[in-house]
Amino acid sequence: MRVDLNCDLGESFGAYKMGNDQEVIPYVTSVNIACGFHAGDPQVMQQTIRLAKKQGVAVGAHPGLPDLAGFGRRNIDVTPEEVYTMVVYQVGALQALAHTEGVCLQHVKPHGALYNMAAQDSSLSEAIAAAVRDVDRDLILFGLAGSQLIHAGKGLGVPIAQEVFADRTYQPDGSLTPRNRSEAMIHDAEEAAERVVHMLKHRVVPAVDGTEIPIQADTVCVHGDSPEALQFVKKIRERLEMLGVELCPVGE
Amino acid sequence: MRVDLNCDLGESFGAYKMGNDQEVIPYVTSVNIACGFHAGDPQVMQQTIRLAKKQGVAVGAHPGLPDLAGFGRRNIDVTPEEVYTMVVYQVGALQALAHTEGVCLQHVKPHGALYNMAAQDSSLSEAIAAAVRDVDRDLILFGLAGSQLIHAGKGLGVPIAQEVFADRTYQPDGSLTPRNRSEAMIHDAEEAAERVVHMLKHRVVPAVDGTEIPIQADTVCVHGDSPEALQFVKKIRERLEMLGVELCPVGE
Amino acid sequence: MRVDLNCDLGESFGAYKMGNDQEVIPYVTSVNIACGFHAGDPQVMQQTIRLAKKQGVAVGAHPGLPDLAGFGRRNIDVTPEEVYTMVVYQVGALQALAHTEGVCLQHVKPHGALYNMAAQDSSLSEAIAAAVRDVDRDLILFGLAGSQLIHAGKGLGVPIAQEVFADRTYQPDGSLTPRNRSEAMIHDAEEAAERVVHMLKHRVVPAVDGTEIPIQADTVCVHGDSPEALQFVKKIRERLEMLGVELCPVGE
Amino acid sequence: MRVDLNCDLGESFGAYKMGNDQEVIPYVTSVNIACGFHAGDPQVMQQTIRLAKKQGVAVGAHPGLPDLAGFGRRNIDVTPEEVYTMVVYQVGALQALAHTEGVCLQHVKPHGALYNMAAQDSSLSEAIAAAVRDVDRDLILFGLAGSQLIHAGKGLGVPIAQEVFADRTYQPDGSLTPRNRSEAMIHDAEEAAERVVHMLKHRVVPAVDGTEIPIQADTVCVHGDSPEALQFVKKIRERLEMLGVELCPVGE
Repeated sequence: MRVDLNCDLGESFGAYKMGNDQEVIPYVTSVNIACGFHAGDPQVMQQTIRLAKKQGVAVGAHPGLPDLAGFGRRNIDVTPEEVYTMVVYQVGALQALAHTEGVCLQHVKPHGALYNMAAQDSSLSEAIAAAVRDVDRDLILFGLAGSQLIHAGKGLGVPIAQEVFADRTYQPDGSLTPRNRSEAMIHDAEEAAERVVHMLKHRVVPAVDGTEIPIQADTVCVHGDSPEALQFVKKIRERLEMLGVELCPVGE
Repeated sequence: MRVDLNCDLGESFGAYKMGNDQEVIPYVTSVNIACGFHAGDPQVMQQTIRLAKKQGVAVGAHPGLPDLAGFGRRNIDVTPEEVYTMVVYQVGALQALAHTEGVCLQHVKPHGALYNMAAQDSSLSEAIAAAVRDVDRDLILFGLAGSQLIHAGKGLGVPIAQEVFADRTYQPDGSLTPRNRSEAMIHDAEEAAERVVHMLKHRVVPAVDGTEIPIQADTVCVHGDSPEALQFVKKIRERLEMLGVELCPVGE
Repeated sequence: MRVDLNCDLGESFGAYKMGNDQEVIPYVTSVNIACGFHAGDPQVMQQTIRLAKKQGVAVGAHPGLPDLAGFGRRNIDVTPEEVYTMVVYQVGALQALAHTEGVCLQHVKPHGALYNMAAQDSSLSEAIAAAVRDVDRDLILFGLAGSQLIHAGKGLGVPIAQEVFADRTYQPDGSLTPRNRSEAMIHDAEEAAERVVHMLKHRVVPAVDGTEIPIQADTVCVHGDSPEALQFVKKIRERLEMLGVELCPVGE
Repeated sequence: MRVDLNCDLGESFGAYKMGNDQEVIPYVTSVNIACGFHAGDPQVMQQTIRLAKKQGVAVGAHPGLPDLAGFGRRNIDVTPEEVYTMVVYQVGALQALAHTEGVCLQHVKPHGALYNMAAQDSSLSEAIAAAVRDVDRDLILFGLAGSQLIHAGKGLGVPIAQEVFADRTYQPDGSLTPRNRSEAMIHDAEEAAERVVHMLKHRVVPAVDGTEIPIQADTVCVHGDSPEALQFVKKIRERLEMLGVELCPVGE
């Protein structure tokens, strides 16, 4: 059993600091670095690449919608053509900064509203998958397990990694339970770790109604933006290791 | 005698159209494409790369200061560290879009205030030259002939192209006569072409006081943003060809 | 019979020019000035207010979504709270610039995606109507005739002006025929003028299926962004005057 | 003896939080609210106005250069005409938001690079002073004591408040000692309070070389962006009150 732990990093912007990059990075194996559209700036990107290199974790691009004011979390009516070029642009920018630090990009994970819209929209998903492929055929596309983004990646021959959420519950259709419902979150790190192990062993996850739904867990999304989140990451990592799960970047 | 004719392209943004890209491109041999900071957006960049590819001209990046409101023409107090990362970011973004179209970048020419500040400031120039080198050792750095940018490129072993202005007069110290002076511009295309030929043959240009100053003319900057400018480009090209000058991209 | 003719103005931004403000302004009675979020900048706003003052037309604010790259035409998932503050902010900014020129604002007309989203969404409409009321109780809210925005204005006691489109056809439910359908546009200015006169006289407009739908025409939206549009405005104005319609700002 | 204590507030932006607004506001008498160009957004502005109203402190606008990436701290070559309109725009936007909360603006204090450039440049200072006057003749202009901004305000008949820095030392010419010098800062809150009392009593401040320079202290700038800064504000306030200084907004 092996899995990747990924976390969003490099979300500061100019004088604005966000996240606990230094604190969370020891616990993860891959990082998704913001590329300047929803968060991040060239200086922050460079520093985050350096931090990832020093820590020995794999680096990926985290392109988002052009919406700093909304942190890329607001749906915007964008066309597949716009999405294709905005992904190429952002991945290319990070790729060049990584190259100057002697780092190769491992993956691309769309951010926020772009990730969510693509999970359900095949034309946006295909635009993202094509963009990733056209920038570099070795880049791995991260997408919600079982989503349109994964289907698009498979269809275009793009290497993919299916992402699962250890701290979220699932609906019978495989989607995440919306955050505004009481049963949406799993707050206990041990339970979360056991769910991941269950996914790895049995390739299923129990939905909120008890039915088991098939799921492929290549990478687990974790967060580091609060003391509680940090504690959760630390515990889930310890527990996964205790349960015999090998943690390593998805590209290795 | 051979020389490159370069022109800024891809300066539209969203619904805002700027320039006469279609009209001017037949007359030039290299184009400098805006990269989204002072002008341009991912869609415009893609379309401009396609236009350049179709026309068979060489493509370069035209990175600028992050100042869409000021079109990159206002000096901003930026540090060499900021300049390094903003150039890598922008060149990387264009490079990736070019790659998806099967086009390799030939050169990098800083835009507007960044170009002018770098011409006189050795630390900014070194930051730009290092950025260009670190993205791709084959990229040619365009800079004002004889300026700090050229010195920095030479010092760091970056391929350089010295840029001259056919329609501007020079001061005895090699700088361009400021535009607000009456003798700043050369309006006659034939005279402008003859000045270029003089530079190519004798490696000197007469300053406004008559003294001849040494100059290396690798590429000539032309503009296409008005009917007059278009007419000027057409005439200067014809005249240069009549005078036996071979026009081709500086990278060939 | 009297009606207002309104047109969007002041949509340039920095070095980017848009529209034919000078050419279209003689033909309209009210102008909607962009406020810097989807178009316009403080300098452009000031110049446009001066132009409107000189021409003697009524001035209104044209607030939009914060999306310069999309010209405010892309739907963005914004909350009513965000919409309230972004409208107050933009109207306040224009109001202050107008005040420095001795001009009072007559009206507020939301732009593009904000206008369209509000036409159908009562919570966004109420946010806009409340913002307009709270900035200045005398401001007139422009909205699509019969839309949620008009209902919200009436509900909150905000002075309203119902806007009709002379060059667009209507669906039986009172909405505009989407532009991608062949019957969406009315290209003949005389026919367009006669439709307006019909609305003014009978308070109905024939839908595409021939059924007459009730409509209140307080102000007619016209455009000046192309030579054809300019010609259309000129003709429709002449025709309306010939047919005995008095053209004056809605606030008079 | 009476003086105003002012502090910058409302510098968050979207998902980015900055400052300790809740913690510092009990200790100050006036707040300068960012207006969306270098920091702040319409939602943050509204919330900050509400906080100030609840706390009973005076509210002012804190307009800055259009440079979110640089937090308004980088000099940008802007013209007096641009500065005039950008100040009117920002003050108008905040004024409207304040109006919707039943709050009147007391003052305008330029931010960062705009404040510093205006302190030394009479044409920029005059543009700012004219903008403040033209928006509302009762607005008080805050500027560095003895600077060009104060001279410009006096010259145009704008109510002014001269700002002093309790935690900074002064040069013999009345300018602040640059921060990169060892003697630039005063770290002891008691010493800082005594310096303010000295200014209030004797209208002079000792420069770093011991010479006393004339100074008018209407308002004292304090900061709340770190635990140390908060502690400093708390102590300086206590000490000023102990020494018999009345603390109240400059406009009362």
